[in-house]
Amino acid sequence: MSSESSHISVDTVALDAELVGDEAAVSSPAVAEYAIGLGDDALILAQQLGWWISRAPELEEDIALANIALDLLGHARSLLRYAGTADGRSEDDLAYWRDEHEYRSRWLFEQPNGDFAHTIVRQLLASAYFRALYDALTASTDPTLAAIAAKAQKEVTYHLDHAAQWMRRLALGTDESRRRTIIALTDLWPYLGELFDDDRAARALPAIAVLPSTLREGVDAELAGILSACGLDAPTIPFSSGGGREGRHSSYLGPLLAELQVLARQHPGASW
Amino acid sequence: MSSESSHISVDTVALDAELVGDEAAVSSPAVAEYAIGLGDDALILAQQLGWWISRAPELEEDIALANIALDLLGHARSLLRYAGTADGRSEDDLAYWRDEHEYRSRWLFEQPNGDFAHTIVRQLLASAYFRALYDALTASTDPTLAAIAAKAQKEVTYHLDHAAQWMRRLALGTDESRRRTIIALTDLWPYLGELFDDDRAARALPAIAVLPSTLREGVDAELAGILSACGLDAPTIPFSSGGGREGRHSSYLGPLLAELQVLARQHPGASW
Repeated sequence: MSSESSHISVDTVALDAELVGDEAAVSSPAVAEYAIGLGDDALILAQQLGWWISRAPELEEDIALANIALDLLGHARSLLRYAGTADGRSEDDLAYWRDEHEYRSRWLFEQPNGDFAHTIVRQLLASAYFRALYDALTASTDPTLAAIAAKAQKEVTYHLDHAAQWMRRLALGTDESRRRTIIALTDLWPYLGELFDDDRAARALPAIAVLPSTLREGVDAELAGILSACGLDAPTIPFSSGGGREGRHSSYLGPLLAELQVLARQHPGASW
Repeated sequence: MSSESSHISVDTVALDAELVGDEAAVSSPAVAEYAIGLGDDALILAQQLGWWISRAPELEEDIALANIALDLLGHARSLLRYAGTADGRSEDDLAYWRDEHEYRSRWLFEQPNGDFAHTIVRQLLASAYFRALYDALTASTDPTLAAIAAKAQKEVTYHLDHAAQWMRRLALGTDESRRRTIIALTDLWPYLGELFDDDRAARALPAIAVLPSTLREGVDAELAGILSACGLDAPTIPFSSGGGREGRHSSYLGPLLAELQVLARQHPGASW
Protein backbone atom coordinates (compact mmCIF):
# COMPACT_ATOMS: atom_id res chain seq x y z
CA MET A 1 0.00 0.00 0.00
CA SER A 2 2.76 2.43 0.76
CA SER A 3 3.85 2.46 -2.85
CA GLU A 4 0.45 3.89 -3.85
CA SER A 5 0.17 6.63 -1.29
CA SER A 6 1.61 10.06 -1.78
CA HIS A 7 4.74 10.59 0.19
CA ILE A 8 5.47 13.70 2.09
CA SER A 9 8.67 14.53 3.77
CA VAL A 10 7.85 15.46 7.32
CA ASP A 11 10.42 17.76 8.76
CA THR A 12 11.89 16.43 11.91
CA VAL A 13 12.66 17.04 15.43
CA ALA A 14 13.98 19.69 17.66
CA LEU A 15 16.60 18.08 19.79
CA ASP A 16 18.25 20.30 22.30
CA ALA A 17 20.83 21.59 19.89
CA GLU A 18 17.99 22.75 17.69
CA LEU A 19 15.74 24.28 20.30
CA VAL A 20 14.73 27.66 19.07
CA GLY A 21 15.26 30.98 20.75
CA ASP A 22 17.98 32.87 22.54
CA GLU A 23 19.06 30.86 25.61
CA ALA A 24 19.45 34.08 27.59
CA ALA A 25 16.03 35.51 26.76
CA VAL A 26 13.74 35.78 29.79
CA SER A 27 9.98 35.92 29.45
CA SER A 28 7.69 38.18 31.46
CA PRO A 29 4.94 36.55 33.53
CA ALA A 30 2.38 37.64 30.93
CA VAL A 31 4.37 36.18 28.04
CA ALA A 32 4.95 33.02 30.05
CA GLU A 33 1.21 32.57 30.52
CA TYR A 34 0.67 32.94 26.80
CA ALA A 35 3.53 30.60 25.88
CA ILE A 36 2.28 27.96 28.32
CA GLY A 37 -1.08 27.90 26.56
CA LEU A 38 0.53 27.33 23.17
CA GLY A 39 3.05 24.88 24.57
CA ASP A 40 0.38 22.81 26.32
CA ASP A 41 -1.66 22.56 23.11
CA ALA A 42 1.36 21.11 21.31
CA LEU A 43 2.40 18.85 24.18
CA ILE A 44 -1.01 17.27 24.65
CA LEU A 45 -1.54 16.63 20.95
CA ALA A 46 1.95 15.11 20.72
CA GLN A 47 1.10 12.85 23.62
CA GLN A 48 -2.12 11.65 21.98
CA LEU A 49 -0.43 11.09 18.63
CA GLY A 50 2.35 9.11 20.26
CA TRP A 51 -0.15 6.34 20.98
CA TRP A 52 -0.17 5.48 17.28
CA ILE A 53 3.49 4.67 17.19
CA SER A 54 3.71 0.99 16.28
CA ARG A 55 -0.05 0.85 15.88
CA ALA A 56 -0.52 2.62 12.54
CA PRO A 57 -1.97 0.76 9.54
CA GLU A 58 1.33 0.78 7.63
CA LEU A 59 4.99 1.14 8.51
CA GLU A 60 5.32 4.35 6.57
CA GLU A 61 2.42 5.92 8.46
CA ASP A 62 3.92 4.80 11.74
CA ILE A 63 6.94 6.89 10.88
CA ALA A 64 4.92 9.86 9.63
CA LEU A 65 2.76 10.11 12.76
CA ALA A 66 5.78 9.67 14.98
CA ASN A 67 7.53 12.50 13.20
CA ILE A 68 4.55 14.77 13.56
CA ALA A 69 4.40 13.96 17.26
CA LEU A 70 8.08 14.76 17.57
CA ASP A 71 7.71 18.07 15.76
CA LEU A 72 4.93 19.03 18.17
CA LEU A 73 7.00 17.92 21.12
CA GLY A 74 9.75 20.19 19.81
CA HIS A 75 7.36 23.14 19.70
CA ALA A 76 6.16 22.35 23.20
CA ARG A 77 9.71 22.19 24.54
CA SER A 78 10.70 25.52 22.99
CA LEU A 79 7.58 27.25 24.28
CA LEU A 80 7.68 25.75 27.77
CA ARG A 81 11.38 26.38 28.16
CA TYR A 82 10.85 30.04 27.32
CA ALA A 83 7.81 30.25 29.61
CA GLY A 84 9.81 28.78 32.47
CA THR A 85 12.40 31.54 32.34
CA ALA A 86 9.85 33.86 33.93
CA ASP A 87 10.08 32.10 37.28
CA GLY A 88 13.00 29.70 37.04
CA ARG A 89 11.14 26.54 36.08
CA SER A 90 12.46 24.09 33.49
CA GLU A 91 10.47 22.63 30.62
CA ASP A 92 10.39 19.37 32.57
CA ASP A 93 9.07 21.14 35.69
CA LEU A 94 6.25 22.53 33.59
CA ALA A 95 5.49 19.28 31.78
CA TYR A 96 5.71 16.87 34.69
CA TRP A 97 4.84 18.83 37.81
CA ARG A 98 1.68 20.69 36.97
CA ASP A 99 -1.67 19.12 37.77
CA GLU A 100 -4.60 18.88 35.43
CA HIS A 101 -6.20 22.20 36.41
CA GLU A 102 -2.88 23.95 35.75
CA TYR A 103 -2.76 22.70 32.17
CA ARG A 104 -3.91 25.30 29.65
CA SER A 105 -4.42 23.15 26.55
CA ARG A 106 -7.63 23.45 24.60
CA TRP A 107 -10.07 20.58 24.28
CA LEU A 108 -9.43 19.60 20.68
CA PHE A 109 -5.93 18.39 21.49
CA GLU A 110 -6.95 16.04 24.29
CA GLN A 111 -9.75 14.41 22.31
CA PRO A 112 -9.23 10.66 22.00
CA ASN A 113 -7.53 8.99 19.05
CA GLY A 114 -10.69 7.08 18.16
CA ASP A 115 -10.25 5.20 14.93
CA PHE A 116 -7.72 6.36 12.38
CA ALA A 117 -10.26 8.74 10.81
CA HIS A 118 -10.70 10.55 14.13
CA THR A 119 -6.97 10.97 14.45
CA ILE A 120 -6.72 12.38 10.93
CA VAL A 121 -9.65 14.79 11.35
CA ARG A 122 -8.24 16.01 14.68
CA GLN A 123 -4.92 16.48 12.95
CA LEU A 124 -6.53 18.38 10.09
CA LEU A 125 -8.30 20.85 12.36
CA ALA A 126 -5.24 21.24 14.58
CA SER A 127 -2.83 21.72 11.71
CA ALA A 128 -4.99 24.31 9.93
CA TYR A 129 -5.15 26.25 13.19
CA PHE A 130 -1.44 25.85 13.97
CA ARG A 131 -0.43 27.03 10.54
CA ALA A 132 -2.53 30.19 10.77
CA LEU A 133 -1.29 30.78 14.31
CA TYR A 134 2.40 30.39 13.57
CA ASP A 135 2.11 32.36 10.33
CA ALA A 136 0.80 35.28 12.36
CA LEU A 137 3.13 34.75 15.31
CA THR A 138 6.22 35.19 13.12
CA ALA A 139 5.33 38.89 13.25
CA SER A 140 5.40 38.98 17.06
CA THR A 141 7.49 41.78 18.56
CA ASP A 142 8.82 39.17 21.01
CA PRO A 143 11.86 37.80 19.15
CA THR A 144 11.82 34.42 20.91
CA LEU A 145 8.17 33.76 20.08
CA ALA A 146 8.78 34.94 16.52
CA ALA A 147 11.74 32.55 16.14
CA ILE A 148 9.79 29.60 17.56
CA ALA A 149 6.93 30.42 15.19
CA ALA A 150 9.21 30.62 12.16
CA LYS A 151 10.50 27.10 12.75
CA ALA A 152 7.10 25.65 13.64
CA GLN A 153 5.43 27.24 10.64
CA LYS A 154 7.37 25.08 8.18
CA GLU A 155 6.64 21.92 10.10
CA VAL A 156 2.91 22.44 10.56
CA THR A 157 2.61 23.18 6.85
CA TYR A 158 3.78 19.61 6.23
CA HIS A 159 1.42 18.33 8.89
CA LEU A 160 -1.50 20.05 7.17
CA ASP A 161 -0.53 18.55 3.81
CA HIS A 162 -0.29 15.13 5.40
CA ALA A 163 -3.72 15.41 7.02
CA ALA A 164 -5.31 16.79 3.84
CA GLN A 165 -3.91 13.89 1.78
CA TRP A 166 -5.30 11.36 4.24
CA MET A 167 -8.66 13.15 4.31
CA ARG A 168 -8.98 12.73 0.57
CA ARG A 169 -7.85 9.14 0.73
CA LEU A 170 -10.41 8.33 3.45
CA ALA A 171 -13.30 10.48 2.25
CA LEU A 172 -12.98 9.38 -1.37
CA GLY A 173 -12.06 5.77 -0.57
CA THR A 174 -14.64 3.13 0.22
CA ASP A 175 -18.18 3.69 1.54
CA GLU A 176 -16.95 2.56 4.93
CA SER A 177 -13.98 4.93 5.03
CA ARG A 178 -16.20 7.83 3.94
CA ARG A 179 -18.76 6.95 6.60
CA ARG A 180 -16.10 6.90 9.29
CA THR A 181 -14.63 10.18 8.10
CA ILE A 182 -17.99 11.92 8.33
CA ILE A 183 -18.54 10.57 11.85
CA ALA A 184 -15.10 11.77 12.89
CA LEU A 185 -15.69 15.22 11.41
CA THR A 186 -18.99 15.48 13.28
CA ASP A 187 -17.40 14.32 16.54
CA LEU A 188 -14.47 16.74 16.41
CA TRP A 189 -15.94 19.83 14.80
CA PRO A 190 -17.42 21.14 18.09
CA TYR A 191 -13.87 21.66 19.41
CA LEU A 192 -12.81 23.94 16.59
CA GLY A 193 -14.55 27.01 18.00
CA GLU A 194 -12.55 27.16 21.21
CA LEU A 195 -9.37 27.69 19.21
CA PHE A 196 -10.60 31.16 18.27
CA ASP A 197 -11.58 32.30 21.77
CA ASP A 198 -9.70 35.44 22.77
CA ASP A 199 -8.30 34.24 26.06
CA ARG A 200 -6.98 36.60 28.71
CA ALA A 201 -3.31 35.84 28.05
CA ALA A 202 -3.58 36.73 24.37
CA ARG A 203 -5.65 39.85 25.01
CA ALA A 204 -3.07 41.14 27.48
CA LEU A 205 -0.26 41.16 24.92
CA PRO A 206 -1.06 43.23 21.86
CA ALA A 207 1.71 43.04 19.21
CA ILE A 208 3.30 40.13 21.09
CA ALA A 209 0.52 37.54 21.02
CA VAL A 210 -1.82 36.55 18.20
CA LEU A 211 -5.45 37.31 18.98
CA PRO A 212 -7.14 33.96 18.24
CA SER A 213 -10.32 35.46 16.78
CA THR A 214 -8.27 36.98 13.97
CA LEU A 215 -7.35 33.50 12.77
CA ARG A 216 -10.84 32.28 12.25
CA GLU A 217 -11.57 33.52 8.77
CA GLY A 218 -8.38 32.08 7.31
CA VAL A 219 -8.79 28.71 9.00
CA ASP A 220 -12.43 28.46 7.92
CA ALA A 221 -11.46 29.14 4.32
CA GLU A 222 -8.59 26.65 4.44
CA LEU A 223 -10.78 23.92 5.86
CA ALA A 224 -13.62 24.65 3.45
CA GLY A 225 -11.24 24.17 0.53
CA ILE A 226 -9.90 20.88 1.86
CA LEU A 227 -13.34 19.53 2.71
CA SER A 228 -14.67 20.57 -0.68
CA ALA A 229 -11.90 18.55 -2.37
CA CYS A 230 -13.18 15.61 -0.31
CA GLY A 231 -16.78 16.17 -1.37
CA LEU A 232 -17.67 17.17 2.19
CA ASP A 233 -19.32 20.22 3.74
CA ALA A 234 -18.23 21.86 6.95
CA PRO A 235 -20.61 20.74 9.70
CA THR A 236 -23.04 23.31 11.03
CA ILE A 237 -23.24 21.88 14.54
CA PRO A 238 -22.66 24.23 17.50
CA PHE A 239 -19.28 24.61 19.09
CA SER A 240 -18.46 23.31 22.56
CA SER A 241 -17.59 25.93 25.14
CA GLY A 242 -14.22 24.40 26.03
CA GLY A 243 -12.40 26.23 28.80
CA GLY A 244 -8.91 24.76 28.50
CA ARG A 245 -7.15 28.11 28.87
CA GLU A 246 -8.82 28.47 32.28
CA GLY A 247 -7.81 24.95 33.34
CA ARG A 248 -11.17 23.27 32.72
CA HIS A 249 -10.71 20.02 30.84
CA SER A 250 -12.59 17.06 29.46
CA SER A 251 -12.29 13.67 31.10
CA TYR A 252 -9.58 12.69 28.62
CA LEU A 253 -6.79 14.85 30.01
CA GLY A 254 -6.37 13.17 33.39
CA PRO A 255 -5.33 9.70 32.20
CA LEU A 256 -3.15 11.27 29.52
CA LEU A 257 -1.25 13.33 32.09
CA ALA A 258 -0.94 10.32 34.36
CA GLU A 259 0.89 8.46 31.64
CA LEU A 260 3.04 11.45 30.73
CA GLN A 261 4.05 12.19 34.29
CA VAL A 262 4.31 8.88 36.09
CA LEU A 263 7.97 8.10 35.57
CA ALA A 264 9.22 11.64 36.16
CA ARG A 265 7.20 11.86 39.39
CA GLN A 266 8.31 8.46 40.64
CA HIS A 267 11.93 9.35 40.05
CA PRO A 268 12.32 13.11 40.38
CA GLY A 269 15.20 14.25 38.21
CA ALA A 270 15.39 10.70 36.83
CA SER A 271 18.07 10.26 39.43
CA TRP A 272 16.59 7.30 41.29
CA MET B 1 17.75 18.09 34.26
CA SER B 2 18.01 18.25 30.50
CA SER B 3 20.32 21.21 30.69
CA GLU B 4 22.85 19.09 32.58
CA SER B 5 22.87 16.05 30.36
CA SER B 6 25.07 15.71 27.34
CA HIS B 7 23.19 16.24 24.14
CA ILE B 8 23.63 14.15 21.11
CA SER B 9 22.15 14.79 17.77
CA VAL B 10 20.35 11.65 16.75
CA ASP B 11 20.16 11.35 13.03
CA THR B 12 16.63 10.90 11.87
CA VAL B 13 14.30 8.89 9.90
CA ALA B 14 14.02 7.22 6.62
CA LEU B 15 10.76 8.30 5.14
CA ASP B 16 9.98 6.80 1.81
CA ALA B 17 11.91 9.39 -0.11
CA GLU B 18 14.96 8.40 1.88
CA LEU B 19 14.60 4.66 1.76
CA VAL B 20 17.91 3.26 0.77
CA GLY B 21 18.71 1.06 -2.17
CA ASP B 22 17.93 0.85 -5.85
CA GLU B 23 14.16 0.53 -6.28
CA ALA B 24 14.67 -1.91 -9.14
CA ALA B 25 17.06 -4.24 -7.30
CA VAL B 26 15.62 -7.69 -6.72
CA SER B 27 16.92 -9.97 -3.99
CA SER B 28 17.49 -13.69 -4.32
CA PRO B 29 15.64 -16.02 -1.92
CA ALA B 30 18.86 -16.53 0.03
CA VAL B 31 19.52 -12.81 0.35
CA ALA B 32 15.88 -12.27 1.29
CA GLU B 33 16.19 -14.75 4.13
CA TYR B 34 19.26 -12.95 5.41
CA ALA B 35 17.69 -9.50 5.06
CA ILE B 36 14.55 -10.62 6.87
CA GLY B 37 16.62 -11.65 9.88
CA LEU B 38 18.31 -8.27 10.07
CA GLY B 39 15.08 -6.42 9.34
CA ASP B 40 13.16 -8.28 12.04
CA ASP B 41 15.83 -7.48 14.63
CA ALA B 42 15.45 -3.78 13.88
CA LEU B 43 11.66 -3.87 13.67
CA ILE B 44 11.17 -5.65 16.98
CA LEU B 45 13.56 -3.39 18.87
CA ALA B 46 11.88 -0.33 17.34
CA GLN B 47 8.53 -1.65 18.50
CA GLN B 48 9.76 -2.18 22.07
CA LEU B 49 11.40 1.26 22.19
CA GLY B 50 8.24 2.91 20.91
CA TRP B 51 6.58 2.11 24.23
CA TRP B 52 8.71 4.79 25.88
CA ILE B 53 7.34 7.56 23.77
CA SER B 54 5.60 9.94 26.15
CA ARG B 55 6.73 7.84 29.09
CA ALA B 56 10.40 8.81 29.33
CA PRO B 57 11.75 10.58 32.41
CA GLU B 58 12.32 13.87 30.58
CA LEU B 59 11.01 15.51 27.44
CA GLU B 60 14.38 15.47 25.80
CA GLU B 61 14.73 11.73 26.36
CA ASP B 62 11.26 11.18 24.98
CA ILE B 63 12.48 12.71 21.75
CA ALA B 64 15.80 10.83 21.76
CA LEU B 65 14.22 7.40 22.23
CA ALA B 66 11.57 8.15 19.64
CA ASN B 67 14.25 9.10 17.16
CA ILE B 68 16.20 5.95 17.81
CA ALA B 69 13.02 3.91 17.31
CA LEU B 70 12.38 5.73 14.05
CA ASP B 71 15.92 5.11 12.82
CA LEU B 72 15.48 1.41 13.52
CA LEU B 73 12.12 1.40 11.81
CA GLY B 74 13.83 2.95 8.80
CA HIS B 75 16.41 0.16 8.75
CA ALA B 76 13.66 -2.43 9.06
CA ARG B 77 11.71 -0.91 6.18
CA SER B 78 14.71 -0.81 3.88
CA LEU B 79 15.68 -4.40 4.68
CA LEU B 80 12.16 -5.83 4.49
CA ARG B 81 11.37 -3.99 1.30
CA TYR B 82 14.45 -5.46 -0.32
CA ALA B 83 13.70 -8.91 1.05
CA GLY B 84 10.17 -8.75 -0.33
CA THR B 85 11.40 -8.25 -3.88
CA ALA B 86 12.38 -11.92 -3.94
CA ASP B 87 8.76 -13.04 -4.03
CA GLY B 88 6.67 -9.96 -4.59
CA ARG B 89 5.80 -9.14 -0.98
CA SER B 90 5.77 -5.57 0.34
CA GLU B 91 7.41 -4.39 3.56
CA ASP B 92 3.91 -4.19 5.06
CA ASP B 93 3.13 -7.78 3.98
CA LEU B 94 6.25 -8.91 5.80
CA ALA B 95 5.66 -6.80 8.90
CA TYR B 96 1.96 -7.39 9.37
CA TRP B 97 1.18 -10.76 7.85
CA ARG B 98 3.78 -13.09 9.25
CA ASP B 99 3.03 -15.04 12.41
CA GLU B 100 5.30 -15.37 15.39
CA HIS B 101 7.14 -18.49 14.19
CA GLU B 102 7.90 -16.74 10.89
CA TYR B 103 9.66 -13.87 12.65
CA ARG B 104 13.43 -14.22 12.62
CA SER B 105 14.42 -11.66 15.26
CA ARG B 106 16.84 -12.63 17.98
CA TRP B 107 15.84 -12.71 21.62
CA LEU B 108 17.66 -9.61 22.83
CA PHE B 109 15.42 -7.32 20.81
CA GLU B 110 12.13 -8.67 22.17
CA GLN B 111 13.22 -8.51 25.81
CA PRO B 112 10.90 -6.28 27.84
CA ASN B 113 11.54 -2.61 28.51
CA GLY B 114 11.75 -3.21 32.27
CA ASP B 115 12.78 -0.07 34.08
CA PHE B 116 14.73 2.60 32.29
CA ALA B 117 18.04 0.89 33.11
CA HIS B 118 16.90 -2.28 31.33
CA THR B 119 16.01 -0.28 28.26
CA ILE B 120 19.39 1.44 28.25
CA VAL B 121 21.37 -1.78 28.75
CA ARG B 122 19.40 -3.50 25.99
CA GLN B 123 20.12 -0.50 23.79
CA LEU B 124 23.81 -0.61 24.64
CA LEU B 125 24.19 -4.28 23.71
CA ALA B 126 22.08 -3.88 20.59
CA SER B 127 23.86 -0.76 19.40
CA ALA B 128 27.34 -2.20 19.90
CA TYR B 129 26.27 -5.21 17.84
CA PHE B 130 24.51 -3.12 15.17
CA ARG B 131 27.50 -0.89 14.72
CA ALA B 132 29.88 -3.79 14.22
CA LEU B 133 27.39 -5.46 11.89
CA TYR B 134 26.75 -2.46 9.68
CA ASP B 135 30.43 -1.52 9.64
CA ALA B 136 31.17 -4.94 8.18
CA LEU B 137 28.11 -5.03 5.94
CA THR B 138 29.19 -1.89 4.08
CA ALA B 139 31.71 -4.20 2.38
CA SER B 140 29.00 -6.57 1.14
CA THR B 141 29.18 -7.42 -2.54
CA ASP B 142 25.40 -6.92 -2.65
CA PRO B 143 25.08 -3.21 -3.45
CA THR B 144 21.66 -2.80 -1.84
CA LEU B 145 22.76 -4.33 1.45
CA ALA B 146 25.94 -2.25 1.35
CA ALA B 147 23.93 0.95 0.80
CA ILE B 148 21.50 0.16 3.61
CA ALA B 149 24.45 -0.58 5.89
CA ALA B 150 26.21 2.67 5.02
CA LYS B 151 23.19 4.72 6.09
CA ALA B 152 22.47 2.64 9.18
CA GLN B 153 26.09 2.71 10.30
CA LYS B 154 25.99 6.45 10.97
CA GLU B 155 22.76 6.22 12.89
CA VAL B 156 23.70 3.31 15.12
CA THR B 157 26.93 5.10 16.00
CA TYR B 158 24.80 7.83 17.55
CA HIS B 159 22.65 5.25 19.27
CA LEU B 160 25.72 3.67 20.82
CA ASP B 161 26.96 7.05 22.06
CA HIS B 162 23.56 7.76 23.53
CA ALA B 163 23.42 4.43 25.36
CA ALA B 164 26.99 4.77 26.61
CA GLN B 165 26.29 8.25 28.00
CA TRP B 166 23.24 6.97 29.85
CA MET B 167 25.17 3.97 31.15
CA ARG B 168 27.70 6.28 32.78
CA ARG B 169 24.98 8.51 34.12
CA LEU B 170 23.14 5.56 35.67
CA ALA B 171 26.12 3.49 36.79
CA LEU B 172 27.95 6.44 38.32
CA GLY B 173 24.83 8.17 39.64
CA THR B 174 23.20 7.20 42.92
CA ASP B 175 23.49 3.87 44.75
CA GLU B 176 20.00 3.06 43.54
CA SER B 177 20.71 3.83 39.90
CA ARG B 178 23.91 1.76 40.03
CA ARG B 179 22.07 -1.11 41.66
CA ARG B 180 19.43 -1.07 38.95
CA THR B 181 22.03 -0.87 36.20
CA ILE B 182 23.81 -3.95 37.50
CA ILE B 183 20.54 -5.87 37.68
CA ALA B 184 19.70 -4.87 34.12
CA LEU B 185 23.12 -5.88 32.87
CA THR B 186 22.77 -9.27 34.54
CA ASP B 187 19.28 -9.75 33.13
CA LEU B 188 20.19 -8.90 29.55
CA TRP B 189 23.70 -10.22 29.20
CA PRO B 190 22.53 -13.81 28.46
CA TYR B 191 21.02 -12.59 25.17
CA LEU B 192 24.26 -11.18 23.82
CA GLY B 193 25.65 -14.56 22.78
CA GLU B 194 22.91 -15.34 20.26
CA LEU B 195 23.89 -12.29 18.23
CA PHE B 196 27.13 -14.06 17.24
CA ASP B 197 25.58 -17.37 16.20
CA ASP B 198 26.38 -18.19 12.61
CA ASP B 199 22.88 -18.80 11.34
CA ARG B 200 22.17 -20.67 8.13
CA ALA B 201 21.23 -17.58 6.13
CA ALA B 202 24.53 -15.85 6.88
CA ARG B 203 26.59 -18.98 6.28
CA ALA B 204 25.00 -19.44 2.86
CA LEU B 205 26.14 -16.05 1.56
CA PRO B 206 29.90 -15.58 1.78
CA ALA B 207 30.99 -12.07 0.67
CA ILE B 208 27.36 -10.91 0.75
CA ALA B 209 26.44 -11.52 4.39
CA VAL B 210 28.42 -10.81 7.55
CA LEU B 211 29.26 -13.95 9.48
CA PRO B 212 28.07 -13.07 13.01
CA SER B 213 30.88 -14.87 14.81
CA THR B 214 33.39 -12.51 13.21
CA LEU B 215 31.79 -9.58 15.06
CA ARG B 216 32.26 -10.98 18.52
CA GLU B 217 35.77 -9.83 19.31
CA GLY B 218 35.09 -6.23 18.31
CA VAL B 219 31.81 -6.03 20.21
CA ASP B 220 33.33 -7.57 23.31
CA ALA B 221 36.14 -5.02 23.27
CA GLU B 222 33.73 -2.13 22.69
CA LEU B 223 31.49 -3.19 25.56
CA ALA B 224 34.43 -3.86 27.88
CA GLY B 225 35.63 -0.30 27.32
CA ILE B 226 32.22 1.23 28.01
CA LEU B 227 31.61 -0.92 31.07
CA SER B 228 35.05 -0.12 32.39
CA ALA B 229 34.29 3.62 32.15
CA CYS B 230 31.22 2.84 34.29
CA GLY B 231 33.28 0.94 36.87
CA LEU B 232 31.56 -2.29 35.84
CA ASP B 233 32.81 -5.67 34.67
CA ALA B 234 31.27 -7.71 31.90
CA PRO B 235 29.13 -10.43 33.51
CA THR B 236 30.44 -13.97 33.31
CA ILE B 237 27.04 -15.65 33.29
CA PRO B 238 26.26 -18.17 30.53
CA PHE B 239 24.51 -17.17 27.36
CA SER B 240 20.95 -18.22 26.56
CA SER B 241 20.54 -20.47 23.53
CA GLY B 242 18.08 -18.18 21.76
CA GLY B 243 16.80 -19.53 18.47
CA GLY B 244 15.18 -16.46 16.93
CA ARG B 245 16.61 -17.06 13.47
CA GLU B 246 14.82 -20.42 13.44
CA GLY B 247 11.54 -18.86 14.57
CA ARG B 248 11.74 -19.87 18.25
CA HIS B 249 10.90 -16.94 20.49
CA SER B 250 10.47 -15.96 24.10
CA SER B 251 7.02 -15.26 25.49
CA TYR B 252 7.51 -11.54 24.88
CA LEU B 253 7.18 -11.59 21.10
CA GLY B 254 3.55 -12.68 20.83
CA PRO B 255 1.92 -9.70 22.58
CA LEU B 256 4.30 -7.34 20.82
CA LEU B 257 3.30 -8.65 17.40
CA ALA B 258 -0.37 -8.51 18.35
CA GLU B 259 -0.05 -4.79 18.99
CA LEU B 260 2.00 -4.20 15.85
CA GLN B 261 -0.36 -6.10 13.59
CA VAL B 262 -3.86 -5.56 14.92
CA LEU B 263 -4.89 -2.53 12.89
CA ALA B 264 -3.36 -3.69 9.63
CA ARG B 265 -5.05 -7.07 9.98
CA GLN B 266 -8.43 -5.59 10.89
CA HIS B 267 -8.34 -3.30 7.90
CA PRO B 268 -6.26 -4.96 5.18
CA GLY B 269 -4.70 -2.30 3.04
CA ALA B 270 -6.00 0.28 5.50
CA SER B 271 -8.83 0.63 3.04
CA TRP B 272 -11.74 -0.10 5.39
